[in-house]
Amino acid sequence: MGKLAFFTNPTSIAVIGASSAAGKVGYTVVDNIKTSGYTGKVYPINPKAPEINGFKAYPNITACPETPELAVFVIPAKHCLATAEECGQKGVRGCVIISAGFKEVGGDGIELEQKLVAIGKKYDMRIVGPNVLGVSTPSFNCTFASRHPRKGPIAFLSQSGAMLTSILDWSFANNIGFSNFISLGNKCDVHETELIEEVCEDDNTKIILLYLESIVDGPAFLERVSVASRKKPIIILKSGTSLAGAAAASSHTGALAGNDIAFDLAFAQAGVIRAKTMSELFSLARLFSNTNFNTLKAVQDRKFVIITNAGGPGIIATDAFETFGVSLSQMTEATKDALRKALPEEASVKNPVDVIGDATPDRYAKAMEIAFTDPNVDGCLVLVTPQAQTQPDEVARLCVEVQKKNPDKLIVTSFMGGDTMKSPAQILATGNISNYDFPEPALQAIRAVCDYAKLRLLPSAASDCGDVCGFKDQKKHDRIVQIFKEVREDDRTVLLSHETSEIFQIMGVSAPLTKLAATKEEAGKFADELKYPIVMKIVSAQIMHKSDCGGVKLFLKTKEECIAAFDEIMHNAKTRGPSGAILKGVEVQQMVDFTKKNKSTEVIVGMNRDGNFGPMIMFGQGGVYANYVKDVAFELSYGYTREKAFEQLKKTKINAILEGVRGQPRSDIDGLVDILVKLSQLVTKFPEIQELDMNPLLVFDDSIAAVDVKITI
Amino acid sequence: MGKLAFFTNPTSIAVIGASSAAGKVGYTVVDNIKTSGYTGKVYPINPKAPEINGFKAYPNITACPETPELAVFVIPAKHCLATAEECGQKGVRGCVIISAGFKEVGGDGIELEQKLVAIGKKYDMRIVGPNVLGVSTPSFNCTFASRHPRKGPIAFLSQSGAMLTSILDWSFANNIGFSNFISLGNKCDVHETELIEEVCEDDNTKIILLYLESIVDGPAFLERVSVASRKKPIIILKSGTSLAGAAAASSHTGALAGNDIAFDLAFAQAGVIRAKTMSELFSLARLFSNTNFNTLKAVQDRKFVIITNAGGPGIIATDAFETFGVSLSQMTEATKDALRKALPEEASVKNPVDVIGDATPDRYAKAMEIAFTDPNVDGCLVLVTPQAQTQPDEVARLCVEVQKKNPDKLIVTSFMGGDTMKSPAQILATGNISNYDFPEPALQAIRAVCDYAKLRLLPSAASDCGDVCGFKDQKKHDRIVQIFKEVREDDRTVLLSHETSEIFQIMGVSAPLTKLAATKEEAGKFADELKYPIVMKIVSAQIMHKSDCGGVKLFLKTKEECIAAFDEIMHNAKTRGPSGAILKGVEVQQMVDFTKKNKSTEVIVGMNRDGNFGPMIMFGQGGVYANYVKDVAFELSYGYTREKAFEQLKKTKINAILEGVRGQPRSDIDGLVDILVKLSQLVTKFPEIQELDMNPLLVFDDSIAAVDVKITI
Repeated sequence: MGKLAFFTNPTSIAVIGASSAAGKVGYTVVDNIKTSGYTGKVYPINPKAPEINGFKAYPNITACPETPELAVFVIPAKHCLATAEECGQKGVRGCVIISAGFKEVGGDGIELEQKLVAIGKKYDMRIVGPNVLGVSTPSFNCTFASRHPRKGPIAFLSQSGAMLTSILDWSFANNIGFSNFISLGNKCDVHETELIEEVCEDDNTKIILLYLESIVDGPAFLERVSVASRKKPIIILKSGTSLAGAAAASSHTGALAGNDIAFDLAFAQAGVIRAKTMSELFSLARLFSNTNFNTLKAVQDRKFVIITNAGGPGIIATDAFETFGVSLSQMTEATKDALRKALPEEASVKNPVDVIGDATPDRYAKAMEIAFTDPNVDGCLVLVTPQAQTQPDEVARLCVEVQKKNPDKLIVTSFMGGDTMKSPAQILATGNISNYDFPEPALQAIRAVCDYAKLRLLPSAASDCGDVCGFKDQKKHDRIVQIFKEVREDDRTVLLSHETSEIFQIMGVSAPLTKLAATKEEAGKFADELKYPIVMKIVSAQIMHKSDCGGVKLFLKTKEECIAAFDEIMHNAKTRGPSGAILKGVEVQQMVDFTKKNKSTEVIVGMNRDGNFGPMIMFGQGGVYANYVKDVAFELSYGYTREKAFEQLKKTKINAILEGVRGQPRSDIDGLVDILVKLSQLVTKFPEIQELDMNPLLVFDDSIAAVDVKITI
Repeated sequence: MGKLAFFTNPTSIAVIGASSAAGKVGYTVVDNIKTSGYTGKVYPINPKAPEINGFKAYPNITACPETPELAVFVIPAKHCLATAEECGQKGVRGCVIISAGFKEVGGDGIELEQKLVAIGKKYDMRIVGPNVLGVSTPSFNCTFASRHPRKGPIAFLSQSGAMLTSILDWSFANNIGFSNFISLGNKCDVHETELIEEVCEDDNTKIILLYLESIVDGPAFLERVSVASRKKPIIILKSGTSLAGAAAASSHTGALAGNDIAFDLAFAQAGVIRAKTMSELFSLARLFSNTNFNTLKAVQDRKFVIITNAGGPGIIATDAFETFGVSLSQMTEATKDALRKALPEEASVKNPVDVIGDATPDRYAKAMEIAFTDPNVDGCLVLVTPQAQTQPDEVARLCVEVQKKNPDKLIVTSFMGGDTMKSPAQILATGNISNYDFPEPALQAIRAVCDYAKLRLLPSAASDCGDVCGFKDQKKHDRIVQIFKEVREDDRTVLLSHETSEIFQIMGVSAPLTKLAATKEEAGKFADELKYPIVMKIVSAQIMHKSDCGGVKLFLKTKEECIAAFDEIMHNAKTRGPSGAILKGVEVQQMVDFTKKNKSTEVIVGMNRDGNFGPMIMFGQGGVYANYVKDVAFELSYGYTREKAFEQLKKTKINAILEGVRGQPRSDIDGLVDILVKLSQLVTKFPEIQELDMNPLLVFDDSIAAVDVKITI
């Protein structure tokens, strides 16, 4: 039991708006509480009735002889504020507000909800909802659902009430049971992270399933769900991917971040399994609720044997293993010999093991048992097609038996058929074997279980790389704050090169020295101060892609060339740049001396900020075509480490080229990772940085040069 | 009825190996024929029994009073040859060989099957099988399945017998019926293409489903299935993707061709819908059998309205529309006004249309009918969750009614729940409305139906671009044959540059002039004959990537440089190339004069040959990193046209860059397409070409230069 136990297991409960009229929500809630076997005190609140459904009723909460721990609201929205106030004064600890008509209707509803939240805060009284179906556990049901959920190992939390009623209906036909069945509604106060923690503490809960459309508190989710996910598997169906607004595309990074990518990253960081469809959610739920991760063999790469009584399904299953990247076992010769002895001559003892069409149940059992003696076998997918000798019921019973004898192995089945396979499916469900209509969803679930088995052994806490940028040095910190201040005072949001160049020097990231010239004379003077060759670029907040309008001149070797370049660049920017662009001058920059270098690879590094989960770091193939090539990978800055950076690199195709292919030397990947980690710390430390683009970043075999950096605050 | 009607609708039938012993296959087959309502003559063949299952029996086929049109074999494999011989002599037109023990067991079985095929050929007697379950139609069933398939619109052909028994079992529980139910087995004679054509002619067949592990005759499939697919939808589950050997990776193109890509291309070319999983096969089958493509509105981009009684499922469905790329309708203001009037105030009249939780059946019906008056609405996805007022049965009945009134629109439903939704599901199935447990599979099916609706209106015949290479000129043709002859005489499989250069000149594809120098003196002489700058490259069949071992020298501007380069290249190849490589000399090539050109884009063009479907043309991002970038698209050379080439280009990311981005001019895409089409004709005309790689091919804005071409014969 956790801190919010008064929602799932209250000692006493008031139903505000209780009714004696069958069919009314206020009736159903009281009836559900009663028939759920709830053993605490029940106080129906109704200004008129003296008694409701066998319970003594009270005109208002103040009149109750004791303080109910929980209050359920089934009254019109307009009465909720006054009632909540009464509850607060009475000392109620939690309210489940079934009533609708709040934020979800817009307009006045939004204001009403804000006031409700304020009342809750004032009295330290927690609120689930509003606009919920209610809360249900095997011993307590204050929902207005038409049936009690079956008892089982799944805690189901849903932001949509309709999803709860659909799934409740579906669960009876599919042998699914629940330890918690909780409607989240508008989440005005209690949110998903708190309830995940709550049900995670519940001994009856084996796995946690959620349907979500949003996440209220991103940082809390990242920090706390990653702890819960190590204790129990958490599977989330997050919808609304099509609604997520694309990030403002004012930068490469913004344009390249997908609609929904931050949720993918956050779920991975929190150790959450993300189901992409409803059927996937249920496919995964089945296998996860039947899997005991404590007894399962702890291996990095789980290997499976397919046992089938027909060739075709065996091939389909083999395809599915490849599709989902699950390994097939290479059994030892001894195992194969044992199988050869136990099975008929026509059987195949390779993987898939084909026990052939006339296989009797004991032949299946023998094949499983022999396979499980092999050290290379961690699990078994049993495929059964209906043939004359098959006896699917008995095969199912033997699967249950063999699984019990081998708790360190995982048996998953696909009894493929219809009418004939209903009875064995029931035997398998009761025996905690996960059975699927077809091999493909079985593999989808096996893949997720393999991944989770690894994940739960990893530490949950976000690692810390230490203060790699030296920001603990107050002087460095203050100087960066000062630069941002100057940019704002100059009415800009984008830093100029000499400003980014200074920040990079503070962080210890090498970038070419840069000065800003306002006149051609200055350009010549600065060029002489720096080292030739020189590169010159137009400086204007309005010009995003400088080279497109002729605003860049490379390889300038003399003062005279630089002076001429100044005029040409200014002219080009005026005539070919966006009209009305304010030209601040031309930056004069020491050019990376490519002639002394080996070949470099152009990469892009960037950051944009997600509204829920904070900064995201991007890495990928750079250059002017980065937006077309789209070879990029993202990671959250939260919990970003050198290890994560290496993983992120590996998600791109450009990484193979950095690693060195076709006889090329390995690029300075360590230096690149260093920049990524420093960048992550910069954007975490300075939330005023909205976006950051480095494109291209030139990666040589011994160094890295940031040629073009754009920081937006 | 087609040419093979004696398999699906024989006038008379002999069962060789018929038996009176219940439980034996020879008994079940006779019993299935009898109880299927078959009205033709039945001749059980059994050397001992005078009568079987009420039919007079005969000791052998010769003894039959008339010639049975079809003979079904249920005798041991070893007796099949002699019996087939007798059948041939008697004049039997087709044999269904249920007997196993042929190719599938390997060894002697392979030979036995070959002999069987020879007997069939000799007597022009066709064979289905061996190793089959049999053939079944609503009026004739010679399978040994335990039940008669239900009558329905689906022709199901399967290479796996177990898949047939599983699906048969499954079909009863899922209201699925069959017009044809045919086991293909080893396909020693009659193959999938012939049977697709056969069942396509059957009036009772609305859609054709196949489970395949291989395709016997690729060219026949491409040519003939593309005709059938315009008449009736053909959906294929092709397994064995994990078994398909990767093409030999001796070329870029070979390495980049995926395992199973040729099947994807062939199915697209033939107009076949490819299901990737068993559940997808059935999801698609349901909607296709309920869709009348003749009455459906013919539109390019079908637009749908979602009607739902709950927000959550509406969001999930919206996501699914985006995932599968199906459009949501933008309804007119008039439609929205009409909806506003018909629905309660809290309802949403945007798309999804939310008729809210208390929606009664007539509210659903009104919403559908109003939406269908809108010219922007072509179909409707109806989502129903179980709420207090829902009455799902009545909603289902109204869906059927509205669909009947609107045959030009498509209604698809997802009644989401379990027990409550069983009865409405039955009503929908009977009323020919496709209902799905969840929105996602509904959208998967809708996507496929939209695609097919477009496809069936396209011409089926492979287009012809004409003789763009001039190969009809016998001199050109013969010269190419002669070059290949010389290569073979030289014991090579890879052409040298001067040879490819000549072939390209014959085809009218511009490639730099090239000569082969065996000595440094020759190198100097040839360089002077060509135009400077010169590029020189090592010539060796064993050196695949010439630049990796220092075998390439660029920008040579004088005779002296070329002479020196010869020695250096030869030295590099000897010391850094593969040991034992035979160096034929150095090719001296006129260099593309880049200085006079705008920037070029490096692409790769190639060909490799698929065992089933012939040459595949590859196009993609080129350069030394092509294999890492993997930005390529393939097309079959069969039916390759300029239009296909443009489509192929569009499948790659590099295409955007060729089209001209960031102020760059459009590259010479027409010229590129010209090369692709010519290449396609070259490899079709000359099957001796095994592989072809052009990498890089430099695409300028006004021309194209093939810098490095490798042709393997």
